[in-house]
Amino acid sequence: MKQTTKKNSARVDAREKVRGQTRFIDDIPVYGMLEAATVRSPVCHGKIKEFKNIDKIKKMPGVRAVVSAADIPGENCVPFVKNDYPCLAGVGEDVKFYGQAVSLVAADTRQQAQRAARAAELLIEEYPAVYDPVEAMTPDAVYIGGEDNIHSSFRIRKGNVDKGFKEADIIVEKVYTTAHQVHCYLENQGITAVPGPSSSVIVSGSMQCPFYVHNALVRVLGLPYSKVRVIQTPTGGGFGGKEDMPSILAAHAALLALKTGRPVRLVYDREEDFHSMSKRHPSRTRIKYGASSDGKITACQAEYIVNGGAYCTLSPIVAWRGLVHVAGPYDIANVMVDSYAMATNTVPCGALRGFGQPQVNFANESLIDELAEKLDMDPVELRRKNLLKTGSQTATGQVVGESCGMEESLQKALQRSSFKLHRGSDKGTLKKGMGISTTFYGVGLGAEGKYFAKAGAQVYVKEDGSVVVAVGNVEMGQGALTVFNRICADTLGCSYDMVEILEPDTTRVPDSGPTVASRATMVGGRAVMDAASRIRDILKRAAAVKLGTDENRVEIKGGKYCSPDGEMDYVDVVNEAYRTRQQVAAQGWYTVKDVSFDPETGMGNSYPVYTFSTNIAEVEVDTETGQVRVSSFTAAHDIGKAIHYPSAEGQIHGGTVQAIGYALYENLVLENGKIINPSFTGYTIPTSLDVPDVDAIIVESPYSEGPFGAKGLGEPPMVGPAAAIMNAVYDACGVRIRKTPGLPEDILEGLKKASVES
Amino acid sequence: MKQTTKKNSARVDAREKVRGQTRFIDDIPVYGMLEAATVRSPVCHGKIKEFKNIDKIKKMPGVRAVVSAADIPGENCVPFVKNDYPCLAGVGEDVKFYGQAVSLVAADTRQQAQRAARAAELLIEEYPAVYDPVEAMTPDAVYIGGEDNIHSSFRIRKGNVDKGFKEADIIVEKVYTTAHQVHCYLENQGITAVPGPSSSVIVSGSMQCPFYVHNALVRVLGLPYSKVRVIQTPTGGGFGGKEDMPSILAAHAALLALKTGRPVRLVYDREEDFHSMSKRHPSRTRIKYGASSDGKITACQAEYIVNGGAYCTLSPIVAWRGLVHVAGPYDIANVMVDSYAMATNTVPCGALRGFGQPQVNFANESLIDELAEKLDMDPVELRRKNLLKTGSQTATGQVVGESCGMEESLQKALQRSSFKLHRGSDKGTLKKGMGISTTFYGVGLGAEGKYFAKAGAQVYVKEDGSVVVAVGNVEMGQGALTVFNRICADTLGCSYDMVEILEPDTTRVPDSGPTVASRATMVGGRAVMDAASRIRDILKRAAAVKLGTDENRVEIKGGKYCSPDGEMDYVDVVNEAYRTRQQVAAQGWYTVKDVSFDPETGMGNSYPVYTFSTNIAEVEVDTETGQVRVSSFTAAHDIGKAIHYPSAEGQIHGGTVQAIGYALYENLVLENGKIINPSFTGYTIPTSLDVPDVDAIIVESPYSEGPFGAKGLGEPPMVGPAAAIMNAVYDACGVRIRKTPGLPEDILEGLKKASVES
Repeated sequence: MKQTTKKNSARVDAREKVRGQTRFIDDIPVYGMLEAATVRSPVCHGKIKEFKNIDKIKKMPGVRAVVSAADIPGENCVPFVKNDYPCLAGVGEDVKFYGQAVSLVAADTRQQAQRAARAAELLIEEYPAVYDPVEAMTPDAVYIGGEDNIHSSFRIRKGNVDKGFKEADIIVEKVYTTAHQVHCYLENQGITAVPGPSSSVIVSGSMQCPFYVHNALVRVLGLPYSKVRVIQTPTGGGFGGKEDMPSILAAHAALLALKTGRPVRLVYDREEDFHSMSKRHPSRTRIKYGASSDGKITACQAEYIVNGGAYCTLSPIVAWRGLVHVAGPYDIANVMVDSYAMATNTVPCGALRGFGQPQVNFANESLIDELAEKLDMDPVELRRKNLLKTGSQTATGQVVGESCGMEESLQKALQRSSFKLHRGSDKGTLKKGMGISTTFYGVGLGAEGKYFAKAGAQVYVKEDGSVVVAVGNVEMGQGALTVFNRICADTLGCSYDMVEILEPDTTRVPDSGPTVASRATMVGGRAVMDAASRIRDILKRAAAVKLGTDENRVEIKGGKYCSPDGEMDYVDVVNEAYRTRQQVAAQGWYTVKDVSFDPETGMGNSYPVYTFSTNIAEVEVDTETGQVRVSSFTAAHDIGKAIHYPSAEGQIHGGTVQAIGYALYENLVLENGKIINPSFTGYTIPTSLDVPDVDAIIVESPYSEGPFGAKGLGEPPMVGPAAAIMNAVYDACGVRIRKTPGLPEDILEGLKKASVES
Repeated sequence: MKQTTKKNSARVDAREKVRGQTRFIDDIPVYGMLEAATVRSPVCHGKIKEFKNIDKIKKMPGVRAVVSAADIPGENCVPFVKNDYPCLAGVGEDVKFYGQAVSLVAADTRQQAQRAARAAELLIEEYPAVYDPVEAMTPDAVYIGGEDNIHSSFRIRKGNVDKGFKEADIIVEKVYTTAHQVHCYLENQGITAVPGPSSSVIVSGSMQCPFYVHNALVRVLGLPYSKVRVIQTPTGGGFGGKEDMPSILAAHAALLALKTGRPVRLVYDREEDFHSMSKRHPSRTRIKYGASSDGKITACQAEYIVNGGAYCTLSPIVAWRGLVHVAGPYDIANVMVDSYAMATNTVPCGALRGFGQPQVNFANESLIDELAEKLDMDPVELRRKNLLKTGSQTATGQVVGESCGMEESLQKALQRSSFKLHRGSDKGTLKKGMGISTTFYGVGLGAEGKYFAKAGAQVYVKEDGSVVVAVGNVEMGQGALTVFNRICADTLGCSYDMVEILEPDTTRVPDSGPTVASRATMVGGRAVMDAASRIRDILKRAAAVKLGTDENRVEIKGGKYCSPDGEMDYVDVVNEAYRTRQQVAAQGWYTVKDVSFDPETGMGNSYPVYTFSTNIAEVEVDTETGQVRVSSFTAAHDIGKAIHYPSAEGQIHGGTVQAIGYALYENLVLENGKIINPSFTGYTIPTSLDVPDVDAIIVESPYSEGPFGAKGLGEPPMVGPAAAIMNAVYDACGVRIRKTPGLPEDILEGLKKASVES
């Protein structure tokens, strides 16, 4: 990707990662460690009657322990939103998806553990299974979970949609479906548990949410919070897949560690990770827009159904985020939405970058184009008429306040991409087209997660002025380390290389919630800023006393504490503070301002603030092979403020590429509930040859509550591209793809149908 | 020892230690670890010309690295008070004591490393050596270090001693000498260094002062403070021997770890520990009291010379503490003291429980008895006439303010011990006698260490109400964990088993100074209390809101937050605080109030507060063998407030026993500067059969600045017993012993001399 940054400075973790020096959990053996493997269900639905050969398994070479549900000292549940997911499915209990964990084995080597796990023979009474969420809704569907197979449902009732549709001159309604998407983090899931002193346990590994893991261990092991310690090791990608899932591995490894009294490491291979770990929810969105002939949208109605899989996990929050955003980034008076997360006998789905939004944005941003065509309007023009601006209301009735860069994002993206429609004008078999989509994105956890909407940080200034920072939010590749580093250094007035961010450890900082929902910078960053600001004030005071001036007259400029009465280098100020025994260490804290959601009407201030983006794709469709190549992509994101431009651009590049894969390549195939392509051979993701240089445009419409004005950026780049690409495909060749992924065979089928119709 | 506690509750670390479950550094192997050994000087003074067979050593079986001075990336010095102690004596540089570290070896096993170190051949040009501190003072003595072999000197000039002695009716003057004492911690010195990410290093091991170790690593390795992390592992005794010495092992292990890129453990065996680690300073105190015939002391003059050994280390602070206390716990108008820490070619001496005070107390409390005899006064009566009380002035002119329990301590000790003099009244060869001594003890670091007189703590209240506390002061057997636990729990109103104290880690808390000078409770405890109090206030507020009352009306009683408007359990209050996202984590901080010392006059408020004690020994002297048995011992200590009675009593028991060893048994023998009895076979310490039940009396004269009124207790029990025992020996058989240890041969010689004289 070409870099267009204003400030070109390296990420703090770049050098080590590029050199291969970063040590991930599978590179960190522990003295005396055992390796673990998992005995998994070979069926999608059934009751475990017996673990037939457990005694034989226990005697297999190298095997040190076998743990089953009966060995769990605490509760047999991994706590997510609901607590329906068993840590291990016990004898007499149900398994609900292929690959569900039933028992655990610890052995001297990983190979021995895996051999033993594979040799396990389970006697299972099979039940009928349901794999489709819409089928799961039918009254006579086999029961899987939740209330009538509904894990969770939400609704919005804003204005009067009947009236709104009556006012409309044109109404469009379509159904869009999306498939599973796999996180495809480079590093598979992995956790090591070490028994600590006084029956405590120390768990480390690849994860996004150490405090969630901590919570799960407390529940499963029946320990007080104070006896558990969770440390995040360098994490090779998360994308939401390491939000809730590491709690399962942590509980499993810890159970074995406490049983054997030895450190136990549990690392999945790629196939196991594919089968058992969460995925992006497949979805079906029926959406309907009504508009007056001049292009004012009068009503939106939508039904958003996601396949939650066998257990609830994070499905409610995914369904809720989809609900809030499905009407699109538009000011619409009448909105009615219903969203459902359904139970099926498939692998539980969870968080994946975008968290329910890529699905609904694909639907609404495709339908907007379809509406524009019906209205015979330019799709940009139609959007412009309806887009959110300061003072507009979102679908939940939230008034858009400060920090709305929607229009600026649209302007810049149009200009930089030289957007124009082709409308199938190319001759020959290689047809070019362009497409657009716009997005809004509620930053952070929102009203449904407000309990976690807090973060803490510790900043310690050391005697030589170097700084140690403990945070509760994690680096998983997205650049959080660099962002925290910059926020801290810029607040204190020291150089970037003086600031060291410690690995997140649940005993070093207050519970800071999860690292998800693009909240690390906005919430975790504010906590760092809060702590650093407290110390900066102490340093200013120390400088003022030394300089014989008033502390209010001291300003930080270029690494110096300056006043009209003289100046001091940062390090000298620190020395002075140490000499006088000042408390140059502080705890920072930030809680997100109040958000709200009325479950009856869906009205409320769903999120503290929104980011906005415009995505413009240019594609080439080969009408002979059906292959689509994204030849150019422009993404303009209003993120409030970029703390570190290269990282921000990297997020846009990466998210866009992941969305290109989502739109065109990534095709997880399940047969009777079982994934049949659990590898990168069968499940293809874009390579660097498949993607264009993404032109990343950063729009900075500052948010007064964010650190230096920053909002969030991790998820938004994943939200908009699918619709932009499908709109471009339509522009190129007249084929409207209403599913993801849009495969060559879908294009060819569309072309065939079009030629029959014409 | 019999326990006479008011509250009988177990120490938090008791169960694991008794069961042998506590893991010390030698029980904690690290994956991929090498073991280290040290090449040491075979001479007491000389210049290293060559490491002759270094190439051969490098090729010995298992050897992975040899590190010498030239390999040190930072400064070749272990920073103590002065920076004269080289980390490794390099080629072309001097060695100044037998056993000084010259090079380091890392090998696959400890045996291989030790074999290689032993095989090292050094070419050394020998210099003449000096072993006696008084000889080192002579003008033509060979130069070793400091200024004319003086590491450090201090003086007190209070009033006019010439005038004071003129006013005296009786003057006594004697010289008292004391020998080395060895710490005899159960666990030898041991450190493990692990190379961390981005050329950082993590050092863990047995130590009292993680922040000193951190500081040393920064200097030796040339790293910023932020790249070093120091963790204290469970420490099997310190007694001052793990104040400064672990910095040497840490630097050595870290050098090898950074050289090899692998974890390196360095653990000393007992003999190596004896030879190379610090000792209590041998001393010579010439002291003179003048008194009027009615027993009012009019003047005190003293010269206190300690043998600092080859390098300065902590000698200045030892000499200073002796200076401040040598005149005894008496209100004397005219005081003149000179103290000197001298350089000799012997192992550097350092901190040992009492820190220069056992030496001077032995002198002044023996001389007070000699004065009483000359005055024909009861020694208790003479003391009573002169002892410090509220409003008195110490030798440095400090006015004794609040918290003076001297008189109460004397009263209670006399009463409980049924003190009476025997004056050799026993017939036969087994003679009983009783002796008394009184002490005062400046708590904490005092004016000469005020830069370090600070402490921080982090308290985190977890979701279930359990509490995690990070402190910067350490448990080394003295009971700090239990004290911090009680202070935190009692402040928050939760039960003791809910509070977990984390292992000290220099990246988890602000620099909290060292754990020495009986300061952990008073200073570290106040920091814990400060943090817990902040959270308690937040919890009170949360309870008040929930109960609909004012936060000032909420009081903590028996684990409940009570108000006239209702009450809530502690855990419910915590839940409420979590629900409302309160910051139930806080950083505590405490700095000791200002202390002062004028180097010209010695006048100033040397310490923030003093503890006081009375020690009464009953002995049986076997006049045929010279053996002295302490048959009974009573010690009454004013410590302000006991936070945990069993631990406080344990400190009195342990300190008294260590002092009995000092007085009668512990005899380190050096020949030409080399220790010839470096083991528990040759260097005998009291066994449980050699010591009486110590009757520990706790006097509580509260100190308003201390947590719940507490002062300190670690060192004081070591200070007074020697004089009480020697006074008792004199009472029993008329032999005045003016040296420690007072061995059977000394008694026999005294008896012989007395019989010749009579």
